[in-house]
Amino acid sequence: MTQKKPWGGRFSAPTHALMESFSASVNHDRRLYRHDIRASIAHARMLAKIGVLTEAEFSAIESGLNAIRDDIERGDFQWDESLEDVHMNIEAKLTGRIGEAGKKLHTARSRNDQVAADMRLYLRDQLDGLGRALSALQRQVVQIAAAEAATIMPGFTHLQSAQPVTFGHHLLAWNEMLERDYERLRECRARLNFSPLGSAALAGTGFAIDRAMTAAELGFTGPCRNSLDAVSDRDFAIEFAAGAALLMVHLSRMAEEIVLWSSDAFGFIALGDAFSTGSSIMPQKKNPDVAELIRGKCARVNGNLAALLMLMKAQPLAYNRDNQEDKEALFDSVDTLHQCLEVCTALLPEITLDRERMRAAAALGFSTATDLADYLVGRNVPFREAHEVVGRIVGFAEQKGLQLAQIDLADLRGFCAVIEADVAEVLTVEGSVAARAHPGGTAPARVAEAAEQALRQLNSRDM
Amino acid sequence: MTQKKPWGGRFSAPTHALMESFSASVNHDRRLYRHDIRASIAHARMLAKIGVLTEAEFSAIESGLNAIRDDIERGDFQWDESLEDVHMNIEAKLTGRIGEAGKKLHTARSRNDQVAADMRLYLRDQLDGLGRALSALQRQVVQIAAAEAATIMPGFTHLQSAQPVTFGHHLLAWNEMLERDYERLRECRARLNFSPLGSAALAGTGFAIDRAMTAAELGFTGPCRNSLDAVSDRDFAIEFAAGAALLMVHLSRMAEEIVLWSSDAFGFIALGDAFSTGSSIMPQKKNPDVAELIRGKCARVNGNLAALLMLMKAQPLAYNRDNQEDKEALFDSVDTLHQCLEVCTALLPEITLDRERMRAAAALGFSTATDLADYLVGRNVPFREAHEVVGRIVGFAEQKGLQLAQIDLADLRGFCAVIEADVAEVLTVEGSVAARAHPGGTAPARVAEAAEQALRQLNSRDM
Amino acid sequence: MTQKKPWGGRFSAPTHALMESFSASVNHDRRLYRHDIRASIAHARMLAKIGVLTEAEFSAIESGLNAIRDDIERGDFQWDESLEDVHMNIEAKLTGRIGEAGKKLHTARSRNDQVAADMRLYLRDQLDGLGRALSALQRQVVQIAAAEAATIMPGFTHLQSAQPVTFGHHLLAWNEMLERDYERLRECRARLNFSPLGSAALAGTGFAIDRAMTAAELGFTGPCRNSLDAVSDRDFAIEFAAGAALLMVHLSRMAEEIVLWSSDAFGFIALGDAFSTGSSIMPQKKNPDVAELIRGKCARVNGNLAALLMLMKAQPLAYNRDNQEDKEALFDSVDTLHQCLEVCTALLPEITLDRERMRAAAALGFSTATDLADYLVGRNVPFREAHEVVGRIVGFAEQKGLQLAQIDLADLRGFCAVIEADVAEVLTVEGSVAARAHPGGTAPARVAEAAEQALRQLNSRDM
Amino acid sequence: MTQKKPWGGRFSAPTHALMESFSASVNHDRRLYRHDIRASIAHARMLAKIGVLTEAEFSAIESGLNAIRDDIERGDFQWDESLEDVHMNIEAKLTGRIGEAGKKLHTARSRNDQVAADMRLYLRDQLDGLGRALSALQRQVVQIAAAEAATIMPGFTHLQSAQPVTFGHHLLAWNEMLERDYERLRECRARLNFSPLGSAALAGTGFAIDRAMTAAELGFTGPCRNSLDAVSDRDFAIEFAAGAALLMVHLSRMAEEIVLWSSDAFGFIALGDAFSTGSSIMPQKKNPDVAELIRGKCARVNGNLAALLMLMKAQPLAYNRDNQEDKEALFDSVDTLHQCLEVCTALLPEITLDRERMRAAAALGFSTATDLADYLVGRNVPFREAHEVVGRIVGFAEQKGLQLAQIDLADLRGFCAVIEADVAEVLTVEGSVAARAHPGGTAPARVAEAAEQALRQLNSRDM
Repeated sequence: MTQKKPWGGRFSAPTHALMESFSASVNHDRRLYRHDIRASIAHARMLAKIGVLTEAEFSAIESGLNAIRDDIERGDFQWDESLEDVHMNIEAKLTGRIGEAGKKLHTARSRNDQVAADMRLYLRDQLDGLGRALSALQRQVVQIAAAEAATIMPGFTHLQSAQPVTFGHHLLAWNEMLERDYERLRECRARLNFSPLGSAALAGTGFAIDRAMTAAELGFTGPCRNSLDAVSDRDFAIEFAAGAALLMVHLSRMAEEIVLWSSDAFGFIALGDAFSTGSSIMPQKKNPDVAELIRGKCARVNGNLAALLMLMKAQPLAYNRDNQEDKEALFDSVDTLHQCLEVCTALLPEITLDRERMRAAAALGFSTATDLADYLVGRNVPFREAHEVVGRIVGFAEQKGLQLAQIDLADLRGFCAVIEADVAEVLTVEGSVAARAHPGGTAPARVAEAAEQALRQLNSRDM
Repeated sequence: MTQKKPWGGRFSAPTHALMESFSASVNHDRRLYRHDIRASIAHARMLAKIGVLTEAEFSAIESGLNAIRDDIERGDFQWDESLEDVHMNIEAKLTGRIGEAGKKLHTARSRNDQVAADMRLYLRDQLDGLGRALSALQRQVVQIAAAEAATIMPGFTHLQSAQPVTFGHHLLAWNEMLERDYERLRECRARLNFSPLGSAALAGTGFAIDRAMTAAELGFTGPCRNSLDAVSDRDFAIEFAAGAALLMVHLSRMAEEIVLWSSDAFGFIALGDAFSTGSSIMPQKKNPDVAELIRGKCARVNGNLAALLMLMKAQPLAYNRDNQEDKEALFDSVDTLHQCLEVCTALLPEITLDRERMRAAAALGFSTATDLADYLVGRNVPFREAHEVVGRIVGFAEQKGLQLAQIDLADLRGFCAVIEADVAEVLTVEGSVAARAHPGGTAPARVAEAAEQALRQLNSRDM
Repeated sequence: MTQKKPWGGRFSAPTHALMESFSASVNHDRRLYRHDIRASIAHARMLAKIGVLTEAEFSAIESGLNAIRDDIERGDFQWDESLEDVHMNIEAKLTGRIGEAGKKLHTARSRNDQVAADMRLYLRDQLDGLGRALSALQRQVVQIAAAEAATIMPGFTHLQSAQPVTFGHHLLAWNEMLERDYERLRECRARLNFSPLGSAALAGTGFAIDRAMTAAELGFTGPCRNSLDAVSDRDFAIEFAAGAALLMVHLSRMAEEIVLWSSDAFGFIALGDAFSTGSSIMPQKKNPDVAELIRGKCARVNGNLAALLMLMKAQPLAYNRDNQEDKEALFDSVDTLHQCLEVCTALLPEITLDRERMRAAAALGFSTATDLADYLVGRNVPFREAHEVVGRIVGFAEQKGLQLAQIDLADLRGFCAVIEADVAEVLTVEGSVAARAHPGGTAPARVAEAAEQALRQLNSRDM
Repeated sequence: MTQKKPWGGRFSAPTHALMESFSASVNHDRRLYRHDIRASIAHARMLAKIGVLTEAEFSAIESGLNAIRDDIERGDFQWDESLEDVHMNIEAKLTGRIGEAGKKLHTARSRNDQVAADMRLYLRDQLDGLGRALSALQRQVVQIAAAEAATIMPGFTHLQSAQPVTFGHHLLAWNEMLERDYERLRECRARLNFSPLGSAALAGTGFAIDRAMTAAELGFTGPCRNSLDAVSDRDFAIEFAAGAALLMVHLSRMAEEIVLWSSDAFGFIALGDAFSTGSSIMPQKKNPDVAELIRGKCARVNGNLAALLMLMKAQPLAYNRDNQEDKEALFDSVDTLHQCLEVCTALLPEITLDRERMRAAAALGFSTATDLADYLVGRNVPFREAHEVVGRIVGFAEQKGLQLAQIDLADLRGFCAVIEADVAEVLTVEGSVAARAHPGGTAPARVAEAAEQALRQLNSRDM
């Protein structure tokens, strides 16, 4: 042990070296330094206001902390594992620098409320950054959707050709997922934006503190309502982790489609060289690694959620040291989201479409069979019967090796006498998509409109 | 195989018996029958309005479906596994009952949008019920908190005596957790309340449907904006499952405390006989099984979340049959939450407090050491030094086998000369809690106020 | 409350109705009845041997329990929720049937060791059944592998054509996964096969019991070594759940490939009508639902694992009621595995290959580029340079719209002068697979050999 | 992009900077350097044997790689992110150092089989180290168990006093858990110990390689049997992660008990100062942080398992880039296990027992009620009746505020006439534990014997 612990008054033996490195968190929590310093300054300003610090002491603390922040940002700060965490490292340095006043900073405070405040400030910043990154991705998606509102591709269910859709329509489905993610992250931000400061260890403090003042200075909506809850709560981390996990599930679905579409079998898209990688052994390979990595990173972000939930299970109030384990999982989800959103946003404009192949695929697999059934319904065949009739027509076509549009009218009429020459139009992919012209449908005009509306919504975001 | 499949037109061989029972979902999805029928009636009414059904056909469908619902509720309905799911069972029965018109019901619809609508209606109902159950539990918690605003107990960190708190304060921390849960469930409800109907299989339909009409009739805010998304999205299930998992984590924390407090070692509370169980071998046992079961059920609800997230990972759009697996996990989380909330609410008033033992425990463990340090700060000792001094005093007391209040003033002054006779008051547990009188603090007056405010907030809920 | 509890001696108030239904497990644990009865008979026989029961009492118990088992199997047994669980239901019925002797059965026993014994017996049986089901699936896989040892298809990495492989080779990769699963399940069986009986509540019992006797009679390797561990341990459930989760991950990978291969884009296989399903709206659809369901069911089995691990986290010894929650997760994983293995085994022979399309796909995508690079290495070009050269040749071919085999020799020599006419053979898919003739390689002869060896290994299983 | 990619022959545009840093793994996979170099040397030696390399080339490669390993260990190696991973970094450096021969090393190899081999070698080493660390912990546990074979404490079920046990008996329950963990880790080691080398990208290679030779040189049991499986399999990581998760669940149970026992309420043990920490605000605190951290770290290791399982779900064969995400989860579980095992082993001998308080607690809570019931059984009262009678006696005692041993004989006989004076001995905690003298029971003699046997088993481990 290299360092007297700031809490060591009652201890007679030094901390075991193993224990020291086992329990230190400074290697990862130091990334909270800016928020720790900001919260400390707000706390000190309040202590000055209520007379616990003199103005001179506060000034010394404020400029001392600002100088430390600058040191850290210049890489000029020696982090010391024996001082355990970011809080003690900064406080120790402060006292070293300004003397006596530094020893007063921790009045009416505990690391329990301090770290809770730091975490909330940190996550709030990150949520703002992630909101911007998500908006940028959505904008990219929606712009391509607008441009490709009339590009026909097969719509799949069960990965089988189902009905023709437009590529723009498909991309707007992506946007819907991301829109919900955005909402969830914003709600998470609003819910976490309360100040734990003043909760001290767990019960509050006997000093006549002004919690509203520190809350306001730090941009919080107000103080947390219960001190025990404020130091033991990690809902914000879990709620964020859950939103992040679901967002990554969405990105994994998009990534899966990119992998499929860029495969030799589908051949709908090509990734740019700048976003592909090759093989160390197979000279011909051009792989969609970026999409696979995103798909893979979905797993780690989900693992982080599982970890945080298990972490908090059955913990009695108030603070327990288990909670220190919240940080790495949280940081990792934040970082992974940032990376994935940024890469996705950069990747999309580099994708080239093979529109011809997409359209050709849309025409296969009897994809307009539903249109044919609907045509029969229009001629008064009950839907269930129409479905049955068309099923038999498909069986016939498959046996003959024909697509629906290639069957002789006479043959069609053999299955159902109400069919007439105007059926031809119904069997084209263009006719099929154009017919789905209600709100939410795949008709090009509707898709263009929906893309425009989505863009307006993105533009109205206040961040 | 006992039954011609409604989709079997193109199939030449019957479904394998193994496959039939493997893929049937009617054994669990039949609990959606009310919502399925309600959505079908809304859909049919809309089909009538746009002229796809005659008014007579609509009437036949509506009364047929209502009759089927009554049959089901009387236990007078034969579910048939070979008809796969709740949708086909009801439709087949309808056609058997009203003939031709029944075959027209599925016009402009697919099971893909149908099941998505059913699930959202079901979950919306459940969320309303869970909201009421959660409110009832919170009310119980807050009422006890108000009654016990001045009951002193030890506040723990690291399960070690930290500082005295009041039992009311502790219970209000529980309420804070539950309050956030409530908000999350309400936001989940708002976000899911859009109508997938009209999305058909994935691309919308060529019929001139009125999606706004069905949405309005079913109480939805409006139609889903993208048909591909509407049939492939299961966010609502996942978002609910995540909210449920976190709620159960909170209940597990409460349960853990009930287990601890009712143990022989703590002895703070006794559960009523009505909520305890005995042992098959040990005649003296009175076990807090109910709390242990709640703690244990936290695990299953978390498992459900993990399952749903993994289920959706990397699924390409639009609907895939994997999604059928969303139901049991969702239903199980809904049921478990209902049970646990109801049991908790019933259990709480049956708990008896041993207030004497709680207070006595609060006085042990040097729980007012922080107050002593703060006292020194009030006499101009910088906090870090005060902390150090008190640490040494605690070491002395521990060695002598004394509590802080039992140390001679002279001995105290030996450690720090600023200590005077008025320290005595600071060292009592009553003094300690009363001092923490800022918002969120544990002072009885503050707790009473906070309980009152919490009750007002509960009363203002609009459900 | 309808029923006096067998543990109710010290209780003055009846169990609350809510609590009763909340805590009862008989609705799911009654499936343990055979194992419960078997273990009770073994226990009673031992009690008779050590003189706690008379021979007559033992006989009455044995025949009473056997009669109850017959009743249950005939559906002639009234399960009573107020009797909580399978154990108390059976014991109460026994006493009702044979009187006094029934009240002696529970001597030297607790439900804690009883349920642990039941669970182990149950899971041991299930593991044997699952081992047989897994063997049957592997046999199916290996037989097809043997038959298709020379069927050429594209081998994929990153879902891009990489190198030609044989379908038999690919199936043997499936078999390797399943082989490891089999081993893990057998090791799980060996590790769980110890008898908790005699551990009583947690500390053992004061009666002079013969634990070796009950262990031997029940086919256990021996008694558990520590009574506290025996009643609190649920490793067997977790270890099984982990093995099950990984097995399902393997099945999900196989299922994913079935979905891909049967898509219009790949078109390598067709599922039989008996294992496909249609669409309620799209008459042409023939969907690989069975594979999608297996893929989906992977999620629930993984959820069960997550639940069991969270369940046991941080539980103090010995038995806590949380453990009751182990059953449904365990049962569900057992059932799901049984279903999925059985369905897979039945499905495989119904798959039809489109060998022509598979071979054609294998020839695309420059899949023999590695062979060309290796050819250059054989002519003394260092591998890294050969890789670079072939990369450029592929770029040239792509631009010209040619496959490698279609490039003029002169053009090839323009890239690298060492290329000669014998290169032609190297560029065929047949040449490519034949060349990989080392153990584990894809050459047809090797695959045939490996299939044979795999079959021998399956045949040598002792169950 | 700073660096020509070794796979870049067919690429015309450079890698995007974002993509480069997104996909690079060298920051974490470089910890595989020793295993990568070892495997490369084995591969090169084999290439020399089959004539692909000259002896001189092999010598250059071998000494070049050894020199690079030394550079790395001296901190004298510049890792380059644009070279993606540990493999390419080392190969590029090798070629820079020895020229042409370096370009031949990757003949008959791909990064796919290379990384699989590296990972298995790495994990095998770690499993050996973890086995030793686990053995050391078990030895510690068993030694204390032997010393405390007769130390009486309360045995708990439902955290309520159940029956007296000995502390040694309790510790041996810990050892049983750890023993199963040890077995699982050893089986995992045996199962992973096969060589993927020679599988190349996925299909094997056309060179006449000797897979048995590389396998043998690297200490593998033999080559993997199927090349497709060898490059796509990550079972070894998942199986390890599952074993690690369960091991951490066990440590979390032990940690939970340490937290409970060292609480003021229990007061059974005290942790040494060297393994406790204090509070930044509460001068009296001495917290069991080490146990809480272990309990918390259980969560991250479980999160890693969840991540790895989700990662592999539904991946088609063979290698996909998702797999790169296996490393950090695996490394983190390995590191966390090492830390936790080491800290536990160091912590245990620093624990001080308060044997008096443990014994006193054991005597409370009517812990010998079962002994009294058994006593009645010995006097021919059927167990169920005995249980009922004792339940009533406990109710009486509770009402009177007496422990069982304090009730007058006359009063006891009032409940059941068969009770006589010899009952006194039955009601002592010493009598209770001594009576449980069968194998696995808590009698001191049995515990001593069991500890001795456990030690013998530990000593017989061959590592």
